[in-house]
Amino acid sequence: MTNLLTTGHTRLDQQLQFLVEIDRLKHVLRRTTTIGGARHENSAEHSWHLALMALTLAEHAAEPVSLTRVVTMVLLHDIVEIDAGDTFAYDTVALATKREREQRAAERIFGLLPDDQTDTMRALWDEFEAGDSADARFAGALDCFGGFLPNTHGGGGSWRDHGVSSSAVLRRMEPLRHSLPRLWPTIEHIIDTGRSLGWFSDGAPDPH
Amino acid sequence: MTNLLTTGHTRLDQQLQFLVEIDRLKHVLRRTTTIGGARHENSAEHSWHLALMALTLAEHAAEPVSLTRVVTMVLLHDIVEIDAGDTFAYDTVALATKREREQRAAERIFGLLPDDQTDTMRALWDEFEAGDSADARFAGALDCFGGFLPNTHGGGGSWRDHGVSSSAVLRRMEPLRHSLPRLWPTIEHIIDTGRSLGWFSDGAPDPH
Repeated sequence: MTNLLTTGHTRLDQQLQFLVEIDRLKHVLRRTTTIGGARHENSAEHSWHLALMALTLAEHAAEPVSLTRVVTMVLLHDIVEIDAGDTFAYDTVALATKREREQRAAERIFGLLPDDQTDTMRALWDEFEAGDSADARFAGALDCFGGFLPNTHGGGGSWRDHGVSSSAVLRRMEPLRHSLPRLWPTIEHIIDTGRSLGWFSDGAPDPH
Repeated sequence: MTNLLTTGHTRLDQQLQFLVEIDRLKHVLRRTTTIGGARHENSAEHSWHLALMALTLAEHAAEPVSLTRVVTMVLLHDIVEIDAGDTFAYDTVALATKREREQRAAERIFGLLPDDQTDTMRALWDEFEAGDSADARFAGALDCFGGFLPNTHGGGGSWRDHGVSSSAVLRRMEPLRHSLPRLWPTIEHIIDTGRSLGWFSDGAPDPH
């Protein structure tokens, strides 16, 4: 079927092509599940959830942040996965090639947009990846929490399924300690509890 | 299992409870599919897609809009469906009770938040529903387009599946004519083409 979405207006056509393309993020599945564990979540709905986390939790950010920039970052942070796939945060082999795969994907997908929008979105994505600004640090901490949350309600979820150690989770959650310090004691408490419940590869189940 | 997500900080606990609750929007299915028709889309990933539409297409808005407010509106506009369900835009019976069901849902779900955030989010949702501001009109037009887009790539999609007439679709898309006028000729052209292809209850398939 021919593409009916042609307006004859170059910028608008480029934007529509981008919007059609990114629909595919709804089919990129993460290792984590929705809360309750009914099914794996996809990267589009995960990004939506992070944006709501940003809107709701911004007051607890350790540094002043621009909410608009943080929301935009989390909305587009996973778009590269359309080409590069979701890389499990605890898969050290896949993590080694993640950067290169995602750079190519960013080039192609943000490149569908008009040049000025390519530049703006790409710059925000680069900033998120680098994690060197207050906004990127807060967005990155939310991304960590987005992966943490379903596992705490699903009996260990993807940690248990993939033999992740509690020390790896603690390291992975480190951005939360700095960017959302008010949440940190709870994170530690949940990991401790999970260890006693046998969620992790390095913790023995509680004998009781 | 007891709720491990307790911080002892009242505001934060309310916010976390809200964030856990709204995860359920990932399980609310719409009549429309993802582009290509592989499966029905859910209201969380649909909301993510609308937010990207807002970020990408804002320059074409007929009236000046606050992008931050529009993005926030589309991110939260469907949260009420967790209780009220998704109401098909062409189901006139369900539409009659939609308002009351959604008002009760807004009360309960936004009410999980600290009072000031309840008020802010509820006010934005009310504004979206009323459609009386430039921001709400643009957000509403994007919502229309979000329902239109997958059907144009899926051989008529939910229109064909549910015997919708082309005149009902034209009426439903009316907000786009006013808020995204540059897109309107394409909308009309696609509906005309769909009519000749037999997508609608009031159009005969082209005999060729």
